[in-house]
Amino acid sequence: MALMLRRRPAEVHRLDELAEMAGVARSTISEDLSALGELVARQGLGRIETMQGSQGGVCYWPDPSPASIRGTLDDLSAELRRPERVLPGGFLYLTDLVCSPVWSARLGEIFGEGMRSAQPTHVLTVETRGIPVALMTAQALGLPLLVARRDVRVAEGPALSITYLSGASGRVHNMSLPRRALPSGGRVLIIDDFMRGGATAKGLVDLAGEFEARVVGVGVAIATTQPVNKQVGRYLPLLVLNRVDEASRWVDIRPNPIWRSGER
Amino acid sequence: MALMLRRRPAEVHRLDELAEMAGVARSTISEDLSALGELVARQGLGRIETMQGSQGGVCYWPDPSPASIRGTLDDLSAELRRPERVLPGGFLYLTDLVCSPVWSARLGEIFGEGMRSAQPTHVLTVETRGIPVALMTAQALGLPLLVARRDVRVAEGPALSITYLSGASGRVHNMSLPRRALPSGGRVLIIDDFMRGGATAKGLVDLAGEFEARVVGVGVAIATTQPVNKQVGRYLPLLVLNRVDEASRWVDIRPNPIWRSGER
Repeated sequence: MALMLRRRPAEVHRLDELAEMAGVARSTISEDLSALGELVARQGLGRIETMQGSQGGVCYWPDPSPASIRGTLDDLSAELRRPERVLPGGFLYLTDLVCSPVWSARLGEIFGEGMRSAQPTHVLTVETRGIPVALMTAQALGLPLLVARRDVRVAEGPALSITYLSGASGRVHNMSLPRRALPSGGRVLIIDDFMRGGATAKGLVDLAGEFEARVVGVGVAIATTQPVNKQVGRYLPLLVLNRVDEASRWVDIRPNPIWRSGER
Repeated sequence: MALMLRRRPAEVHRLDELAEMAGVARSTISEDLSALGELVARQGLGRIETMQGSQGGVCYWPDPSPASIRGTLDDLSAELRRPERVLPGGFLYLTDLVCSPVWSARLGEIFGEGMRSAQPTHVLTVETRGIPVALMTAQALGLPLLVARRDVRVAEGPALSITYLSGASGRVHNMSLPRRALPSGGRVLIIDDFMRGGATAKGLVDLAGEFEARVVGVGVAIATTQPVNKQVGRYLPLLVLNRVDEASRWVDIRPNPIWRSGER
């Protein structure tokens, strides 16, 4: 039963169906679930939510515990501080981490826990490197993932596109999403891997606006401390990158203090 | 324990660590795992593998059963046959499905089951639409994911790139991968969402060759029946697309018969 729930996180499983599958009475299932829920919570493996009533169901949210979140973000910071990650030009090599199934799943679960209360209906990202974390966030929340493209692809049908100015390159970029991908009135959670000035996130906010959808949250795996004023007002970074010193290969990166204080 | 294993599929968990976490003797853990293994196999939820010896460990492979694979591919074919998926130009709208956490996870588990015996060490795809299924395949196999880019990005450091001729557009494209992403001697499993002539897959094979890596398998979610001769020799499609009739909005798509016959 635990495997069933874990295999389809964030999906509601009906109690009578679970009971039939396990070949036991519904009352037994309820007792088992209650025991499982306590165990899961104690081990910091997430949360099991049971809905009562004739249509009673159960849902597994893979929410990590505060201790598990801190452990993940400490480990990721340590990995990112390794001197061999410093690239020519003072960039940081992080592609292997944000594309890894293990790390993207852990970060996705943290965004799921942090953003569920905003009640998003869709997760939105832009190609390419933000996709793994955004996909895992969508999985943790049980939501569809929308991927904005930087070029309009005929094979995806009619699309809405916007242009935006990237702060880093100073160039004009395009971003588009198929017309049918997002219904008006949708509640959008934007997820990306990296934020410097916030131009890309702002572009995604504008794109969602074209669909008459509402942005209920912006989450990024890593945000730089500079510039202080980003193009989006509220955003939630997991890690904060203060400085990369190319000469000494020194990287100043740490978990966003909000996760440490438990203020959230 | 089941949740622990499911949360980190394809990772080896040491028996003594599991026993300590659960607060029981190691012999009890072994018995529990054996019971869990039988249950998991009976329910078609995958396979639990126990390694004996002083470094004894246990690993959960989320391999779907043959019946579960057939069910998934039948359901996906039915979804793709919906008339509203036919786009102007006779294209098929499939972005929402290949980007969905639910479908990409199911397809990734099928590739994991089908490709494990080839003993890959890396999963390789190219941006954009193949990423979700490739990520979920990498998760099911416990491997890193490599994403080739169509443009060389300075922020990823020194990269190897190749040019290839796309059959569909007749244009020359670029594909690149960071130099440090793939060690020589790596065993690469290529995963993509769609194959027509196979030019993209051929490009990925050539790119892997530049790293002195060996391609041990090519998997695509959907392959067209035409052209019959693809640019890659062996590939494994989950679904086969025979025809899209734009006027009547009729889509001829079905599971690759190999999954039905159980020949694999």
